[in-house]
Amino acid sequence: MPYNAAPDDWWKTFVDALPAHTAKLAVVRADGSPLVAPIWIERDGEEIVFMTSADTIKGKSILRDGRVSLCLDNETPPFDFVTISGTTTTSDDPDELLRWGTSIAARYMGAEVAEAFGKRNAVPPEMVVRVTPTHIVAKNNVAD
Amino acid sequence: MPYNAAPDDWWKTFVDALPAHTAKLAVVRADGSPLVAPIWIERDGEEIVFMTSADTIKGKSILRDGRVSLCLDNETPPFDFVTISGTTTTSDDPDELLRWGTSIAARYMGAEVAEAFGKRNAVPPEMVVRVTPTHIVAKNNVAD
Repeated sequence: MPYNAAPDDWWKTFVDALPAHTAKLAVVRADGSPLVAPIWIERDGEEIVFMTSADTIKGKSILRDGRVSLCLDNETPPFDFVTISGTTTTSDDPDELLRWGTSIAARYMGAEVAEAFGKRNAVPPEMVVRVTPTHIVAKNNVAD
Repeated sequence: MPYNAAPDDWWKTFVDALPAHTAKLAVVRADGSPLVAPIWIERDGEEIVFMTSADTIKGKSILRDGRVSLCLDNETPPFDFVTISGTTTTSDDPDELLRWGTSIAARYMGAEVAEAFGKRNAVPPEMVVRVTPTHIVAKNNVAD
């Protein structure tokens, strides 16, 4: 497929768009095999923020290795996608958990239930994960 | 989030549904970091078939390691997803390339342009990749 490169900051518009696309998070398992699963995310400037639990395969991989890749796409013609690869830092600070859990839930579930979701996830082993992008691929109109 | 386990074969219904979900394919780069990107797929019985080029990061990882993970999801409430992890075999047989390239393009672009897409991709370094699942996670109504 011939790809059309998108303008430099187009990936931010795509990540921010509502209704929010889920991100698909890829990590590497302890045995060296890949794993991909859907997550809720939010952009914070040049970084991506999401939450996961320290006791999941995703969380364990992030604490062990820290390298991740995220993909968001438009699944119908003309097909657009953003892939963000990067490194991560984590926090289990209760204020950070409550802040990001509430804000991210609002994007995917609506403001009226965001507070309840935020409170439910504001305790360890839940973690706030912050992705610093090292490489971004952003293509729009893939099928053109 | 409390997950609801789906019936054993629900993943097949979800993978087959039209309009077709793109799959997000995760592989491991040579440096051990993960990469995820969108691909077009088709189910063939218990297996998943897709095409990629041998000279891409995806193709090189598959030829080197062969372990992949695929995720398809419904991005809006109540949120459903299927993650398929497995091993791969590849073929660059021209008949296989033409057959699967045409069939897969029909799912995503429509029957009227499938033949043109199929012919365009029916030459190496394009490959037919067949995934034999080793582990499937299928969850529906994730947000319930």
